[in-house]
Amino acid sequence: MNFKEKLRDNQELVNQEINKYIKKENLPEITLNEAIEYSLMSSAKRLRPTLIIETYKLFKNDYEKCLPFAVSMEMTHTFSLIHDDLPGIDNDDYRRGRLTIHKMYNEATAILAGDSLMNNSYRIIANEINNSENIDQMKKKIRVLNEFSCAIDEMIIGEYLDTECEGKEISKEKLDYIHNKKTASFFKYCVRTGAILAEASEEDIDNLTLYAEKIGLEFQIKDDILSEIGDSKIMGKPVGNDKAMNKITYVTKFGVEKAQEYLEKTTNEALRTLETYGNKAEFLKELAIYIKDRNH
Amino acid sequence: MNFKEKLRDNQELVNQEINKYIKKENLPEITLNEAIEYSLMSSAKRLRPTLIIETYKLFKNDYEKCLPFAVSMEMTHTFSLIHDDLPGIDNDDYRRGRLTIHKMYNEATAILAGDSLMNNSYRIIANEINNSENIDQMKKKIRVLNEFSCAIDEMIIGEYLDTECEGKEISKEKLDYIHNKKTASFFKYCVRTGAILAEASEEDIDNLTLYAEKIGLEFQIKDDILSEIGDSKIMGKPVGNDKAMNKITYVTKFGVEKAQEYLEKTTNEALRTLETYGNKAEFLKELAIYIKDRNH
Repeated sequence: MNFKEKLRDNQELVNQEINKYIKKENLPEITLNEAIEYSLMSSAKRLRPTLIIETYKLFKNDYEKCLPFAVSMEMTHTFSLIHDDLPGIDNDDYRRGRLTIHKMYNEATAILAGDSLMNNSYRIIANEINNSENIDQMKKKIRVLNEFSCAIDEMIIGEYLDTECEGKEISKEKLDYIHNKKTASFFKYCVRTGAILAEASEEDIDNLTLYAEKIGLEFQIKDDILSEIGDSKIMGKPVGNDKAMNKITYVTKFGVEKAQEYLEKTTNEALRTLETYGNKAEFLKELAIYIKDRNH
Repeated sequence: MNFKEKLRDNQELVNQEINKYIKKENLPEITLNEAIEYSLMSSAKRLRPTLIIETYKLFKNDYEKCLPFAVSMEMTHTFSLIHDDLPGIDNDDYRRGRLTIHKMYNEATAILAGDSLMNNSYRIIANEINNSENIDQMKKKIRVLNEFSCAIDEMIIGEYLDTECEGKEISKEKLDYIHNKKTASFFKYCVRTGAILAEASEEDIDNLTLYAEKIGLEFQIKDDILSEIGDSKIMGKPVGNDKAMNKITYVTKFGVEKAQEYLEKTTNEALRTLETYGNKAEFLKELAIYIKDRNH
């Protein structure tokens, strides 16, 4: 199986798992559930849950055990996108080629669907902690819970700073700081969660955290490049607007060429962190390259 | 000390405790923190945290142990108010006599402050679980965590149904159902949390849950009455608009008199659940009466 097939396999696995958690009962609050399902069941690449699963697999085979955490992560990622897209923040009409949830339904539904998704991501973890087979396992999941709340906190701060800095001249350090919080915090949480649940050593956890930081940064730079010169049809949203919108991105700040150089450098740094794992880390290596080369 | 003094004492205790959790570091994201502080540091009565503390005290004296949970509850309650007030939902300009957070700052800040408050309420509980002195205590806190996520889920569903039913003819059963979810779910969580943490019996937990359901309903009916005939100066917001806004409340549906009767009946039902606790439940009894008689 090549990388793209493996990626699709993981995407399918996560989609199936998410489906189990979507409420199917015929309750009066069905429209909210429908909106939540609409937002969860997109063509999303499921990169974050895949990171949890594949990091887990570096150390252990019974990856089914980390699937609830994978779903929880995707729910919170989806919550962050829904709120980010709201008229009061980015005011985006499209996401992944479809109407955003506040456009498809309405603003109240989008706000509450986002709230519900964050809450349900915690609910899944709470339930997993409750169902631990032994105290050691329970303590690992409690550690994950704590890291989850820190990761969301960082994401929100990053999102806030991003909003606040719109149209302002900021330094490369601040730009990195914002993106580290906004994007890399979830990537870090994902690899750490996979590693913690699979009982990896603290050294491995730290090392993989560095990998995640690098691919998180990579992801953001590539996003900025695609946002400038990507194919709007493939992307499912308009391109080339960041400059006009006064958005500070790696591209509007340094130009496409410099951003591309920075992307290559960051990718190589990510790959170096995986050297000690040999063939077992093949997927994570190809993932770093995929993030750099993707067209959407 | 009479009831009102005790209530103020608890309010002060909770305010002091909240202050400890407000981030004081001089970070670049200071405006978000400022907005969070603005929303938390209001003249709020702190009824929900007080419920946790006073239920705890029915069974045990070392109530300091439940204070982090009291703060966590108030944070999530505040999050729910901030999002509820947003232009996309209730579009309220005032709350507790002051500008709502989206009016004082902006919509993006309000959305993200709400998200941050919900997340930090979990962060506090996660941290408390982590710092448990023994496994028994840890398991109790994990139970609280699970119940917390269910309570928030119910609140969101109630909030959503409330939005969806605006201007529609609905039955008294549905109105009770909505308010049970929207308001009583947190009251129930509070007494259950106090009781669980204080190692109360399952029978006591169930009985106090009934008390909470009743005062939750009481609270909502009284809110509806005040919203119609309260003093707008004391309330800190305009009154008498629910009918014009097509809001379904106990008052717009049944009139003030019938709503008042229903309020009395519900209060008596709340008081009956406390009979077995004698003098120890004095505060909770007076609280049920206070909710009925309050003027804001």
